[in-house]
Amino acid sequence: MQLTYHTDYALRLLMYLALAGNRRATVEDVATSFGISRNHMMKVAHRLGRAGYVETIRGRSGGLRLKRDAGNIRVGAVVRDMEEGWQIVECFDSARNTCVIAGPCRLKGVFKEALAAYLAVLDRYTLADLMANTGQLGRRLGLGSAPVPKAAAPAF
Amino acid sequence: MQLTYHTDYALRLLMYLALAGNRRATVEDVATSFGISRNHMMKVAHRLGRAGYVETIRGRSGGLRLKRDAGNIRVGAVVRDMEEGWQIVECFDSARNTCVIAGPCRLKGVFKEALAAYLAVLDRYTLADLMANTGQLGRRLGLGSAPVPKAAAPAF
Repeated sequence: MQLTYHTDYALRLLMYLALAGNRRATVEDVATSFGISRNHMMKVAHRLGRAGYVETIRGRSGGLRLKRDAGNIRVGAVVRDMEEGWQIVECFDSARNTCVIAGPCRLKGVFKEALAAYLAVLDRYTLADLMANTGQLGRRLGLGSAPVPKAAAPAF
Repeated sequence: MQLTYHTDYALRLLMYLALAGNRRATVEDVATSFGISRNHMMKVAHRLGRAGYVETIRGRSGGLRLKRDAGNIRVGAVVRDMEEGWQIVECFDSARNTCVIAGPCRLKGVFKEALAAYLAVLDRYTLADLMANTGQLGRRLGLGSAPVPKAAAPAF
């Protein structure tokens, strides 16, 4: 029942960027703040970019920033986009299934229903909901506790 | 989001025994019917025995049988008893957590709620519910489609 490290790190990276606001944030910064390998974080940033969550600002003062407002990023959507192993039991993947009772057995339907209930909860929360304690989170990530200046915030 | 093979095989073994009823069923029979290694199935049977789902009948005509009625075995209970990795994200395990924002971050609470919703669905179904298509299941497992003779059923 564990999520992959990629999904876990993706949620951390998105939270970091939401807290950073318009301040410069590089893959290096995020990796260092969380004590995670830069290489892993780079791969996660690349996938989040392709999935439309973050964008890269090029140049000397470049870095990463959220492409959408934190209030418009659903936790369920991030988990769906990042996770790859949705085959709870073997028969979920008909190409690889070897179970002889797949078909008459009702287990697949029960697990599909359970998975839908799991994702429905995640869909109720946005990235912004995860970060109600902005001040504490910012301090722990070395981003300070000051709110992002509204006037200078990038328009996205 | 995958379950371990042990949990998957445990559910298959329990279904087999429910279908076999009072007929002799050995680990070998179950492993052969599902095309699974006998060694894996032996480990699963051992764990199910310790958790109180199956019992071993000793002697020449011995084997395994359900210790409880299939209608009294909840899918959620089996999954809880067999799965070991409930740490959806790193901060679920405080002894191993390295995430610096564990505490102020609300992700753990969201995933706990999602996991509870997932298990609540599994708790609504029993082993008996999984096997509505008794005839088809029995034929696929080489157990025939005849119902278990009531008079000879073991009293458990």
